[in-house]
Amino acid sequence: MKVIEITVTPIAVPDVPLANTKGVHQSVFLRSIIEVKTDTGLVGLSETYGAKRTLAGLQAVAPLLEGLDPYDLRDLRARIERALPDAGGINAPTALADHQLVDVVYSAFEIALLDIRGKEVGRPLYDLLGGATRKTVSFGAYLFFKFDKRDLTFGPDIMGEVMTPDALVEQARAFVGEYGFRSLKLKGGVLEPDLEVETMLKLREAFPHHPLRIDPMGAWSVQTAKRVVDQLHGVLEYLEDPCRGMDAMAELSALIDMPLATNLVVVEFEQIIEAVKTDAVQIILSDHHYWRGATGAIHLGEMCRAAGLGVSMHSNSHLGISLAAMCHVAAATPNLTYDCDTHYPWSTKEIVKGGRPQFRDGTLQVPDGPGLGVELDHEAVVELHDLYNRVMVVDRDDTDEMLKYVPDYVRKVPRW
Amino acid sequence: MKVIEITVTPIAVPDVPLANTKGVHQSVFLRSIIEVKTDTGLVGLSETYGAKRTLAGLQAVAPLLEGLDPYDLRDLRARIERALPDAGGINAPTALADHQLVDVVYSAFEIALLDIRGKEVGRPLYDLLGGATRKTVSFGAYLFFKFDKRDLTFGPDIMGEVMTPDALVEQARAFVGEYGFRSLKLKGGVLEPDLEVETMLKLREAFPHHPLRIDPMGAWSVQTAKRVVDQLHGVLEYLEDPCRGMDAMAELSALIDMPLATNLVVVEFEQIIEAVKTDAVQIILSDHHYWRGATGAIHLGEMCRAAGLGVSMHSNSHLGISLAAMCHVAAATPNLTYDCDTHYPWSTKEIVKGGRPQFRDGTLQVPDGPGLGVELDHEAVVELHDLYNRVMVVDRDDTDEMLKYVPDYVRKVPRW
Repeated sequence: MKVIEITVTPIAVPDVPLANTKGVHQSVFLRSIIEVKTDTGLVGLSETYGAKRTLAGLQAVAPLLEGLDPYDLRDLRARIERALPDAGGINAPTALADHQLVDVVYSAFEIALLDIRGKEVGRPLYDLLGGATRKTVSFGAYLFFKFDKRDLTFGPDIMGEVMTPDALVEQARAFVGEYGFRSLKLKGGVLEPDLEVETMLKLREAFPHHPLRIDPMGAWSVQTAKRVVDQLHGVLEYLEDPCRGMDAMAELSALIDMPLATNLVVVEFEQIIEAVKTDAVQIILSDHHYWRGATGAIHLGEMCRAAGLGVSMHSNSHLGISLAAMCHVAAATPNLTYDCDTHYPWSTKEIVKGGRPQFRDGTLQVPDGPGLGVELDHEAVVELHDLYNRVMVVDRDDTDEMLKYVPDYVRKVPRW
Repeated sequence: MKVIEITVTPIAVPDVPLANTKGVHQSVFLRSIIEVKTDTGLVGLSETYGAKRTLAGLQAVAPLLEGLDPYDLRDLRARIERALPDAGGINAPTALADHQLVDVVYSAFEIALLDIRGKEVGRPLYDLLGGATRKTVSFGAYLFFKFDKRDLTFGPDIMGEVMTPDALVEQARAFVGEYGFRSLKLKGGVLEPDLEVETMLKLREAFPHHPLRIDPMGAWSVQTAKRVVDQLHGVLEYLEDPCRGMDAMAELSALIDMPLATNLVVVEFEQIIEAVKTDAVQIILSDHHYWRGATGAIHLGEMCRAAGLGVSMHSNSHLGISLAAMCHVAAATPNLTYDCDTHYPWSTKEIVKGGRPQFRDGTLQVPDGPGLGVELDHEAVVELHDLYNRVMVVDRDDTDEMLKYVPDYVRKVPRW
């Protein structure tokens, strides 16, 4: 069995102005949809980032994968490394964290190859990862402060402006009501820390039994983070990336007894070792889009088990192919004991057949068809590819977008 | 596809009196041969330890695996943990290192299940591990001081007595001549350290370009090991388990700049983290018989890469099923850059069809048939199972065996 053809289709998906410490989401988020065809007539699917560096990497590698054996992940890696020498990261140098382009491109194609293998043997993808420890995956509500969406050219707003603790609690009520989410995670680093503490305390009051998290994306100094932790003692399940960089996280960690989670200071396997040595974090966020695919995410789970670290799951804005892959990885990661993040409720589109899956009590059933268990809705892809061509957004820049809402916005890390 | 029947057959294989710091090999070594049958007519093979604790564990678990899906390694693990609660280790409490019985039993069945999966899809086992980075695997000569074998009831001797540096060099010449091995490893901890240093220096003189190793199995104090290292500076590729325990290894490691390898102080994933924190070792020996099977051995490789540790491969006395599995694991572990250990030349029997594989320039071709790529020679198994029933050896005890050669032998760790 050999790869004979690869299609990489950039798409744009209407987004809403969700705020974070970098700025705010643009009018669309970008994804790449990958189809890998074999000489045996199988098609493997994948979905990953669509911003320009990733897209260029995918497009540069795609023609060089002709003849690849879908089982040979090491040949995949070797071809990518040859195609993208010294490729560096996918993000701008000012990014809080970066992911190696070779890892991201590898991750994207690896999922498509596993999808092919699953289809060949008639097995769900999780079976290629050692089997499922769970068939339903729990997700949490991903809560955002947000602006009122002004430009509705490319899609509607969802839930209007949310810029106060009380409005955020209402957002949480809406999400819990509609999706049944258990854990509630606030994307912090947006309002003054005292207001975000107030928000978490109000969430606790409104939802006495829901695990709570906040992720200010490195917006706080160690001193500020320490003050927040003191105010939220006993309230948070974990605190995600309060400070920027391994040193600051380690400094804070030594001062507190609240677990720290990260998807910023530990994004490569080597950094797990550093994090363990410094005890900088206690929970690592898995994400098959950059942790070297689904097999890499399983390795991550094993390493975290060995290191005594917890595992949670990270999300970027995504559609149903990524969602299916996330479910398979979560199913096959026994120590992924926290509810997974997902941006999914913040969009309304879908590119897999059957439309948007329904959450029940905050959970999704892991697809049990062969491979990823999803099929592509080609018409939907064409529609969002057309939007990509019309919208003229080819890169993500939340800080630039923020200037539309706050003209004098200056990015600062830490902000407080 | 479901497991419908499992056969576990203990066999005894004629051995020769190879010396180590615990004592000496008995007249036979014991192995368990495992056959796992599915309702689709496939049979998966495996080979592991045959001493009584392992055999009892395998036999206790085997009937409980009926109905198991060969893809579901997590269900395999769960069934074993339920069957063997608080099972402890496979070795006597005085052992230098121990392996958890659940890990050993899991490892044994995991290989058989992977063999089944490979046969189902017509793929070599390495393809289920991410693909092969090499199709030929390099092994080293495993050199032993040994006694003249007195009791030839169950099998002949190989190479007579080897108890001096010069005799050991002759043994090396014979092995290099017959098998073409490159690396030369001495099982040390048998003669006085000065004699073993002399042996290594004479090996260096006789083989100026062959990588050299010595493994005294924890026989030396830190002080003795330091003295040996000073005398062998620039001579050894690495030094394996000179001292007993993580603390002693870390103490020595801090005093020297020679890489330390281990299959004694790091035998579980959690210990990798401890070893990295203390910098006790720089190379870890892989072994699919206890590192949670072939998939576990691949995880080990990934963890070592992340931790900046080297990977080599450990061996116990074994036959061709284990040898095939070792080849597949080595093929799929990119950072296994050292020649693998193998006891294989120290026996003359074989239980796979086609007989004993031929080493060329110290290497073996990785079997490229489906699964492990080997078939069972049932007549040979019957012969060695008969020997098992006749020989009345059901456990390994090198120290007890040593008393036949050195009546006043007392086991001591460290010895020097």
